[in-house]
Amino acid sequence: MAVGLTGLPTLHAVGGVRLGATAAGIRKRNRDDLLLFEIASGAIADATFTRNAFCAAPVTIARRHLELAPPRYLLINSGNANAGTGKRGLDDARATCQAVADMAGCRIEQVLPFSTGVIGEALPVDRITAALPAARERLSEEGWADAARAIMTTDTVPKGASRRFDLDGSTVTVTGIAKGAGMIHPNMATMLAFIATDAAIEPGPLRRLLADAVAATFNSITVDGDTSTNDACILIASGASGHAPIDTRNSPAYRRVFDAVLDVCTTLAHAIVRDGEGATKFITIDVQNGHDADECRRVADAVALSPLVKTALFASDPNWGRVLAAVGRAGVTDLDIDKVTIRFNEVTIVTNGARAPDYTEEAGQRVFARPEITIHIDLGRGNARARVWTCDFSEEYVRINAEYRT
Amino acid sequence: MAVGLTGLPTLHAVGGVRLGATAAGIRKRNRDDLLLFEIASGAIADATFTRNAFCAAPVTIARRHLELAPPRYLLINSGNANAGTGKRGLDDARATCQAVADMAGCRIEQVLPFSTGVIGEALPVDRITAALPAARERLSEEGWADAARAIMTTDTVPKGASRRFDLDGSTVTVTGIAKGAGMIHPNMATMLAFIATDAAIEPGPLRRLLADAVAATFNSITVDGDTSTNDACILIASGASGHAPIDTRNSPAYRRVFDAVLDVCTTLAHAIVRDGEGATKFITIDVQNGHDADECRRVADAVALSPLVKTALFASDPNWGRVLAAVGRAGVTDLDIDKVTIRFNEVTIVTNGARAPDYTEEAGQRVFARPEITIHIDLGRGNARARVWTCDFSEEYVRINAEYRT
Repeated sequence: MAVGLTGLPTLHAVGGVRLGATAAGIRKRNRDDLLLFEIASGAIADATFTRNAFCAAPVTIARRHLELAPPRYLLINSGNANAGTGKRGLDDARATCQAVADMAGCRIEQVLPFSTGVIGEALPVDRITAALPAARERLSEEGWADAARAIMTTDTVPKGASRRFDLDGSTVTVTGIAKGAGMIHPNMATMLAFIATDAAIEPGPLRRLLADAVAATFNSITVDGDTSTNDACILIASGASGHAPIDTRNSPAYRRVFDAVLDVCTTLAHAIVRDGEGATKFITIDVQNGHDADECRRVADAVALSPLVKTALFASDPNWGRVLAAVGRAGVTDLDIDKVTIRFNEVTIVTNGARAPDYTEEAGQRVFARPEITIHIDLGRGNARARVWTCDFSEEYVRINAEYRT
Repeated sequence: MAVGLTGLPTLHAVGGVRLGATAAGIRKRNRDDLLLFEIASGAIADATFTRNAFCAAPVTIARRHLELAPPRYLLINSGNANAGTGKRGLDDARATCQAVADMAGCRIEQVLPFSTGVIGEALPVDRITAALPAARERLSEEGWADAARAIMTTDTVPKGASRRFDLDGSTVTVTGIAKGAGMIHPNMATMLAFIATDAAIEPGPLRRLLADAVAATFNSITVDGDTSTNDACILIASGASGHAPIDTRNSPAYRRVFDAVLDVCTTLAHAIVRDGEGATKFITIDVQNGHDADECRRVADAVALSPLVKTALFASDPNWGRVLAAVGRAGVTDLDIDKVTIRFNEVTIVTNGARAPDYTEEAGQRVFARPEITIHIDLGRGNARARVWTCDFSEEYVRINAEYRT
């Protein structure tokens, strides 16, 4: 049902990164569910992780390992989240990292584990370690498409994006894959994203680049601080493209790389929303002219999270009063409703806090029926702006989530 | 589908209060949708209203009128919320109050308007005023049951509660009716509650009594500050029972009346949850041993509002990891997950932040299948507590809300 998504685009190889996917039988048989990510020596990486207090064992281990050394391997499994598994979960995550280290001849802290799937069940360590040689066997720079499929859970389509551009005579590539599922709000689910570039960039600018790109993309399809037990986004820079290393964010080269990473992250983040469980519509909520970005975001979230708004969008029922009610309860101090304007695509629905004089039910029906809708909300009290992306809410969502484990 | 609700109980008459319902044809034909509430001279009243910035026209008018004089009449309609209707909505609400005042020979500020139904459509003032004589004709102390039916929108059952007790030789009665619909969280919908007692009580203690009762009941089936455009709860004290007036909250008589009002409000609030759209289960979330009530409430709300938790409850699927993830993302500072315990009724599921050693999937399945479930969450870091009530989340919810206006 993914809204406006077709198959994977071409995912360009990134020098210094090889991927190998295989079937370990973690939850289902005969589908790839284990992915080994090999990173050349000399590459650097940074990551953002969930802020959930119940963070999963692999998140704890990956965060620790990343502080100790640049990673040489990422080990990713679907089917089991290794979350809510206590001390045993930590031991299990470490055991799989140790197995990779033993096989590859590196140190355990050079291996980062990632898991996604059902919460609260023990990780099948033996099946994972038994499948490692097969994953290693398949390592290839061309492995991105298979990798995108191996990390899927309730995703209906694999998600990937790739950009290539010239930087001072060198070709720079940015390629990424992501999985996102179980979401009415993506924050409720596991979101994993793995992005690699062959650009050469120092750790300081890399950290800033990742933080800024994630804030504008993956964290704008989620509620602030409201993340699942396993969320992670990792960015690898191998330096293989050969241009002069980027050591400051105040350089044109930084901007070029940032724009490409932002573009890849935007495509991946939107793909997660477009593939929202049961989604039939892709909704952009664009709140403008608030006092500050914070209050714009609160309004956008209140609308994006309202089940009443989302069911009306699903039904193509122009019940715009539900949008108005959501704006009103977003907790904006001293909101003057007489200054609020609400527009759906090109159709102005609310002006001065009431139905626009020339609005017609027919115009509302036409715009609510579109598969892609931007809800413009003008608060009329400042210059700040925030945008979030979400999907509608269908019976299919309930069906999927009521049957997930059965 | 209402969970554990049968028909209306006996609703005792309250001296000094008469109710008359009639069919004004506001939205549908041949069903009562207009209710006139007559209050004897000498009675006092207080009310709590929505905090939504887009509050409906009748809320604005009722709030204003209540500041000017004790009400003699309440005029309540279902089918149309008169919200999002701008200046015209205010004029319309005032026009209906004026019509009541003209008919009854009182001042306009002695009439309070209440509306519930679709947002954004003009109130059919003519149909309402035309029906007023019929409503007046039917005024009766025995009108509570018809009144409970007249204020319904998507409610599947009328909601009422009544208590009677002896106070210093006088019989005191507390009777209330409520409507709540369109809710996965009651705060998203219109909640109207009208409660009357023949107790004699001064305005100061009455205000405190209503505020305390609402906080523990109607505001515990809702998210803080997160109210619809039309929510209102009004409490009338007619003094007709004849006991000595209550002038302080430090008297045994105050306590007796408070307990009865609290009991009526609890029954009505729970009835709203039990009749939640598509609800198949009644869920109590009881968070204990937090630092303060605020963080307990945040945790309870995070669990109560999680679509993933609610769909798992609907499916009777013991996917308790979703509860754990919701607790973890509630934003409790420095939460030590190793001290968290989660229990469903008598089944302990999580201890020390992981699956309890003696928990079995079978025990989980049994308890998740119950129609009434209490989720006990022990944060293990203080003495505070908060409770909220909610329902599960079914495909039927989406169906109802996708088809509400059609």
